[in-house]
Amino acid sequence: MSETVFLIFELIGTVAFALSGAATAMRKGMDIFGVCILALTTATGGGVIRDLILGKTPPATFLHPIYAIVALATALIAFLPPVRHFFTHHHAFYDHMMLLIDSIGLGVFTMTGIRTAYQALPEATPFLLLFVGVVTGVGGGVMRDIMAGEKPYILVKHFYATASLLGALAAILLWHLIGSTFAILIGALLILLLRFLAAIFHWNLPHAKDA
Amino acid sequence: MSETVFLIFELIGTVAFALSGAATAMRKGMDIFGVCILALTTATGGGVIRDLILGKTPPATFLHPIYAIVALATALIAFLPPVRHFFTHHHAFYDHMMLLIDSIGLGVFTMTGIRTAYQALPEATPFLLLFVGVVTGVGGGVMRDIMAGEKPYILVKHFYATASLLGALAAILLWHLIGSTFAILIGALLILLLRFLAAIFHWNLPHAKDA
Amino acid sequence: MSETVFLIFELIGTVAFALSGAATAMRKGMDIFGVCILALTTATGGGVIRDLILGKTPPATFLHPIYAIVALATALIAFLPPVRHFFTHHHAFYDHMMLLIDSIGLGVFTMTGIRTAYQALPEATPFLLLFVGVVTGVGGGVMRDIMAGEKPYILVKHFYATASLLGALAAILLWHLIGSTFAILIGALLILLLRFLAAIFHWNLPHAKDA
Repeated sequence: MSETVFLIFELIGTVAFALSGAATAMRKGMDIFGVCILALTTATGGGVIRDLILGKTPPATFLHPIYAIVALATALIAFLPPVRHFFTHHHAFYDHMMLLIDSIGLGVFTMTGIRTAYQALPEATPFLLLFVGVVTGVGGGVMRDIMAGEKPYILVKHFYATASLLGALAAILLWHLIGSTFAILIGALLILLLRFLAAIFHWNLPHAKDA
Repeated sequence: MSETVFLIFELIGTVAFALSGAATAMRKGMDIFGVCILALTTATGGGVIRDLILGKTPPATFLHPIYAIVALATALIAFLPPVRHFFTHHHAFYDHMMLLIDSIGLGVFTMTGIRTAYQALPEATPFLLLFVGVVTGVGGGVMRDIMAGEKPYILVKHFYATASLLGALAAILLWHLIGSTFAILIGALLILLLRFLAAIFHWNLPHAKDA
Repeated sequence: MSETVFLIFELIGTVAFALSGAATAMRKGMDIFGVCILALTTATGGGVIRDLILGKTPPATFLHPIYAIVALATALIAFLPPVRHFFTHHHAFYDHMMLLIDSIGLGVFTMTGIRTAYQALPEATPFLLLFVGVVTGVGGGVMRDIMAGEKPYILVKHFYATASLLGALAAILLWHLIGSTFAILIGALLILLLRFLAAIFHWNLPHAKDA
């Protein structure tokens, strides 16, 4: 995958996660500073965790202002009254929007984790690629939910981490078969698709309370 | 301590912390995915923090699948209805079980912190060994409690970090005297013993509210 | 800035953040162990995050016992009944005290982030210096609030991160003009001043709920 195409891909994920952070902050009634901080944390958190795990210091987010600028611009646009109104007044819209943008972020960042791990450690095992991918994918959202005092999505949305894991698996299997570009796109789309299917068909799982 | 004996020691801690994560998740009524995620986070969190602090990247958890596999297998077994039933219906059993398994995890991971620090930095000061040991020991449990929205054990269970500290101190003092194997075993057992004594005799401490 | 002057500066920040951690713990009715742990976490958390981001492992806090000793001594003094009484019984006093000590910690640690980044990466861009400064400044307080189960200051106190950012900006602009000593002092004082002005004049910002 060319660097330019991948940068665009990363920026899509950054916008999506920034928007999910901003939406969470607005629903909690935070002011514009809180909205910006939570957007920035959600959008850059996964990448920082990824780079720390791979020993790439300082993390890319601290070297290239583009991610922070895009995340903050997204937060400011989300805070414009007409946009904000949708997030805070339409609960059904909010839930659907969150599913969409959080899934895009999950898909994109799972893939950036795998790609960065491949580049930093060419001899990485599939296990390392999978694990780094999932942790990178879920990291930003976990930081968003913990800072906002919400139950982490990853613990309450059944299938959340599994969607990330299956998308990561598909990308790793396809990596040398069809090239990194298509492997990344298919992996990210699979994550999006799996989360939609889980939401549409209410895939349910045994709960501890059923015992 | 031979690598094989130490691996078994580490896996005991992994099972214990995975079980404590699974138990917390089940008491909160999470589904099987939430139970697996919290078990995995608790069991591997301390080791990841340890390796990041010591500059060992990627952390061992990401290199060797054994820890993740054992943690997930533990979570699945804990989720079997007869096992689950004990955790969610017997409150006294739950409390005693949590004290036991969390203390085993605390003891084991405090010791892995010290041993890994010794290996990574042979000239490490006793202060560094102590601090890395305690942070490694308490790290997984803190991540478990924060993700589950519980008050962190380390802040509410008096004596928690002190037990880890005293066990670490004993192991460091005995390290060159009786060899690492016995130092580690005595350190871990001391942590277990101290936590039991604190629980049995209700060692109480001045609270801020008494002022 | 000479190492000795800077160490004194850092210790002032350590005392301030330790005090803010201890105050939060005491208001929550924790015992002396909880108070010590939260003081230590708040006082050393920002520095650990800073060093991990800059790839300086093990972090300075793990190498030099002085920070942990000062943080714990501060916690013990704060726990003395006459001192504790002020924190837990005078709500207005508590709020003013927290504003003061948290702002001192924010100012000091924002500056240690910038200085450590300059030393570790002499060719660092202003963006990296700014970002590392702010993350170091806010890190300890975020860990304090998350562990205590409070809404993070950074999300509810409008202007919190912006004060850190403006102080960091001033210090970076002045660094080569007037030397690091004065740049650091002016940057830290500016952060203190901005937070006081925001509190006194109730600088208000649009909230999401107004939409």
